[in-house]
Amino acid sequence: MRGAVMHGPGDVRIEDLDVPSVVEPTDAVIEVAAACICGSDLWPYRGLEPSDGRPMGHEYVGTVTEVGDAVKNVKVGDFVVGSFCLSDNTCEICRSGYQSRCVNGGFVQGAQAQYARIPLADGTLVVVPGGRPRDEATLASLLAASDVLGTGWFGAVAADAGPGKTIAVVGDGAVGLMAVLAAKQLGAERIVAMSRHEDRAALAREFGATDVVAERGDAGVAAVKELTGGLGAHGVVEAVGTQESMMQAIGACRPGGHVGYVGVSHDVSLPGQELFFAQVNLLGGPAPVRRFLPDLVERILKGKIDPGKVFNLVLPLDDAAEGYKAMDERRAVKVLLQP
Amino acid sequence: MRGAVMHGPGDVRIEDLDVPSVVEPTDAVIEVAAACICGSDLWPYRGLEPSDGRPMGHEYVGTVTEVGDAVKNVKVGDFVVGSFCLSDNTCEICRSGYQSRCVNGGFVQGAQAQYARIPLADGTLVVVPGGRPRDEATLASLLAASDVLGTGWFGAVAADAGPGKTIAVVGDGAVGLMAVLAAKQLGAERIVAMSRHEDRAALAREFGATDVVAERGDAGVAAVKELTGGLGAHGVVEAVGTQESMMQAIGACRPGGHVGYVGVSHDVSLPGQELFFAQVNLLGGPAPVRRFLPDLVERILKGKIDPGKVFNLVLPLDDAAEGYKAMDERRAVKVLLQP
Repeated sequence: MRGAVMHGPGDVRIEDLDVPSVVEPTDAVIEVAAACICGSDLWPYRGLEPSDGRPMGHEYVGTVTEVGDAVKNVKVGDFVVGSFCLSDNTCEICRSGYQSRCVNGGFVQGAQAQYARIPLADGTLVVVPGGRPRDEATLASLLAASDVLGTGWFGAVAADAGPGKTIAVVGDGAVGLMAVLAAKQLGAERIVAMSRHEDRAALAREFGATDVVAERGDAGVAAVKELTGGLGAHGVVEAVGTQESMMQAIGACRPGGHVGYVGVSHDVSLPGQELFFAQVNLLGGPAPVRRFLPDLVERILKGKIDPGKVFNLVLPLDDAAEGYKAMDERRAVKVLLQP
Repeated sequence: MRGAVMHGPGDVRIEDLDVPSVVEPTDAVIEVAAACICGSDLWPYRGLEPSDGRPMGHEYVGTVTEVGDAVKNVKVGDFVVGSFCLSDNTCEICRSGYQSRCVNGGFVQGAQAQYARIPLADGTLVVVPGGRPRDEATLASLLAASDVLGTGWFGAVAADAGPGKTIAVVGDGAVGLMAVLAAKQLGAERIVAMSRHEDRAALAREFGATDVVAERGDAGVAAVKELTGGLGAHGVVEAVGTQESMMQAIGACRPGGHVGYVGVSHDVSLPGQELFFAQVNLLGGPAPVRRFLPDLVERILKGKIDPGKVFNLVLPLDDAAEGYKAMDERRAVKVLLQP
């Protein structure tokens, strides 16, 4: 089969690989219907994480082709979407809603391929009622649920988005845009997208943003305070992962408000005293997408949300290298790969 | 009148000062019945904060002697306890429960004195039903509510203490001990006091600790995990304010758990990636004591809690310097001063 492997910074290749098969009795193998490139895939692409020979891809939808003996919840032929995090969904941490930190967990690898092995299939995968959707838009939306939608959703939940709330979103990448969509779905009254790219700001408005702030850093904080009677937003989603974006998120949040940070943290160091006196609730980390997946799948199938719009470049898997390049150069928000 | 002034590191003096009077129409003046020395007073005492000529003291109970024209909720002769933070208790931030970050707020100063001016009296002070208590134990408990109990309580609330929960407390100073008491009152099932001082550990057990862990740092984290099936505590109160204590608190908390940090942060820097993957809820800062005060006063008057036990040294105000020394040398947990 064909699959994407990162050999070093900027060096993603599609190679002939063995078709994976069940190793553990809790595994499933799926034929991937669609996969995508994640913002976090750009960290190794840019040489900021080691990558030598890493099979890439952790977002996927597909059809189950093989299951291990212990798998009960999915069967061959099921069309499934799964989280990028593996979870048994039965341990105490999973049951508390933090499947991304399952005591037996880990991360999906190698989903930018024709087939992928998914460990802990029962606790990681969700069967899509009705099977593979006929239209590509629904397929893309289900794919988005696998990570980028689920991650933005977690950010919005961690930011305590809800009726009457003003939610600011730092970052206009795919996750930030999904956080806007999530905040809207969760009932936020006002949603401030912090974006300086017109095309992304337009998409943010489509997803529910009521205001757009182009300023960053202290100026961005001041602009959000200006919009909120000097107090700051009730909640802020941080969807970048840098020092500037974290401090912008914390600064734009009112005391007692909630910052949900879902941008994978790189070279961030939070000053204790500033955090102490900011007095915001802080919650972040890899999103427990599995917690939200059944609800997200239902919203997608009912046509309530259309997160697949976040994919603005669709490529055959064989052109994955071009997809990475387009995302790296910010020509694409999010790239869908067709195996 | 007599009052404490810090002139520099290690240099606290009781001096003759003017009796304060009402300046703003929202002020009250109280005759202080009891004041105390706070752990945070030790930072300037140790030269870690500027202190030149600072009137000391922000914890107090006393009798109102004068009120401004705009004061409605307290009157001359009322016996009151107030928060160390000033709050109007009417702004949007106050109404959301974060009176410590009132938009018109600030901090009480100069309460280690015979009289003190309390700005924003209506929103800062709480009248004690029945007037000044006859016994010194109740008086001491009410004094504790002014800061140290309210702060420990906030820490326990931020750590999400409640039925079925295991709560660890980092720090065995007065605030840590009060957090143990609060966790117990809030229904925590298991309370792990992290203490290496036998006398303080004994007091922690009296306040409700079920386990005592003497180890610190990584060893302390390992010990808490050992007690909690490898997962970590559901919630951790951090009541010190150093880098080691913060990392110990975060490390001892399970994913999805809550860390309430109330030790005033000094030279702390939180590594973003470690925080991201710890995936704990983090909330801290100066405690909104005013939120809890009416409830705390009621619990004290009903004899449900006895936080005054935290004072293990009582001195006349004139001996304040000795009180600071005793706390600095850790001979006293908390010092009560009698004006």
